[in-house]
Amino acid sequence: MNKIGSYDFVAEPFHVDFNGKLTLGVLGNQSLNCAGFHATERGFGIASLNEENYTWVLSRLAIELDDMPNQYEKFTVRTWVEDVYRLFTNRNFAYINKDGKAIGYARSIWAMINVNTRKPADLLSMHGGDIVDYICDEPCPIEKPSRIKASTQDVAITTLTVKYSDIDINGHVNSIRYIEHILDLFPIEVYKTMHIRRFEIAYITESYYGDELSFFKEKTDSNEYGIEVKKNAGEITCRAKVNFAF
Amino acid sequence: MNKIGSYDFVAEPFHVDFNGKLTLGVLGNQSLNCAGFHATERGFGIASLNEENYTWVLSRLAIELDDMPNQYEKFTVRTWVEDVYRLFTNRNFAYINKDGKAIGYARSIWAMINVNTRKPADLLSMHGGDIVDYICDEPCPIEKPSRIKASTQDVAITTLTVKYSDIDINGHVNSIRYIEHILDLFPIEVYKTMHIRRFEIAYITESYYGDELSFFKEKTDSNEYGIEVKKNAGEITCRAKVNFAF
Repeated sequence: MNKIGSYDFVAEPFHVDFNGKLTLGVLGNQSLNCAGFHATERGFGIASLNEENYTWVLSRLAIELDDMPNQYEKFTVRTWVEDVYRLFTNRNFAYINKDGKAIGYARSIWAMINVNTRKPADLLSMHGGDIVDYICDEPCPIEKPSRIKASTQDVAITTLTVKYSDIDINGHVNSIRYIEHILDLFPIEVYKTMHIRRFEIAYITESYYGDELSFFKEKTDSNEYGIEVKKNAGEITCRAKVNFAF
Repeated sequence: MNKIGSYDFVAEPFHVDFNGKLTLGVLGNQSLNCAGFHATERGFGIASLNEENYTWVLSRLAIELDDMPNQYEKFTVRTWVEDVYRLFTNRNFAYINKDGKAIGYARSIWAMINVNTRKPADLLSMHGGDIVDYICDEPCPIEKPSRIKASTQDVAITTLTVKYSDIDINGHVNSIRYIEHILDLFPIEVYKTMHIRRFEIAYITESYYGDELSFFKEKTDSNEYGIEVKKNAGEITCRAKVNFAF
């Protein structure tokens, strides 16, 4: 079996923003779906893992983009495993536009946990270490996820209460909703003149229905922002870094 | 060409709720996509209409469900045109589960408008009235969209400001986001014990980035609720009726 999974999509009308470009939340969702397809096809999918009481947990995601598909355009997400360590694995992505050109890449870091104990599993002993057979040296010409600094802000720029539409089958705020809520912190003027060049997110602790999420945002460089999300004014749920380009 | 369009989907992980069932917002989105596919395949799609400065506008949607697909399950959306009048057309949907059983139906009403004048087009003169060739007498065993009564409430139960993620390529709050925001008005306990049996929405006026949407909700019958959404405390943007069943 080819080590690289390749999956085709179309940019649907309700999945593009006011510029007619695919939203980052949808691209993130499709990427995570492709990770699932790719793992499932190789015996490491959530469905087969769940039977053994294990599940994948996304820890970090970094996406870098030159462009986004326009409404109704076809695009392809390619994904492969770059490395496997005992407690985590690196999975990369390439985004190919309708003309076959790479318009972006992503890097992600995943752990596998036991759903009962919530403890990490040893990937190298899982299924006799089969997962290493899928390691692939396809290039991914973007920087690795960086350490995102803690926020220095004391005052949240906004808060919201976790609602029905935010939560997934595990009762957690889903990974994609955090991305959408974070992108909603920026005024429309930003999206009128710039596009997201790089988006990074580190998931730290889960949040649940009814939690109050508070968002702390600061400018960390020219066109670069750090975001921290806390739940119930305490624990950090995730941190993100957004870099815009003209 | 077959008068009924049939399109296959899978219930993706980030498209199911905490019960592991496909969300109504996603089913609505897939339905509207299928309407687009079906119209496009027959020469009445947005892309070809836009060239002639026309576009479809969804006016009403009523969905009735016995069940929803579970996470990772395949399902099929079937759609056809029931009737065409001068100023609007009725399009119906059937939702088929992985075992081939119909688990729900929907009815929708659409108008076509000129994008410059915003005036309705005469569907019977469009493309020489070709659209009537697609009328199909497939049964759709649910009630037609009803007139949704005006709210009697004076006080909004919640308000929100329209954000980047809410708006579509036209700069309007997208039809699906209204559904999500409306479903978020109900506490999680409702979704723990009941499912949505029927959901109806009537779209009245557009809302835009930065608008403040206020939500008025009242119980209109046992397990039935009426919702009205106003923008900037004035004009009504949409009305909905939600009926839950155990």
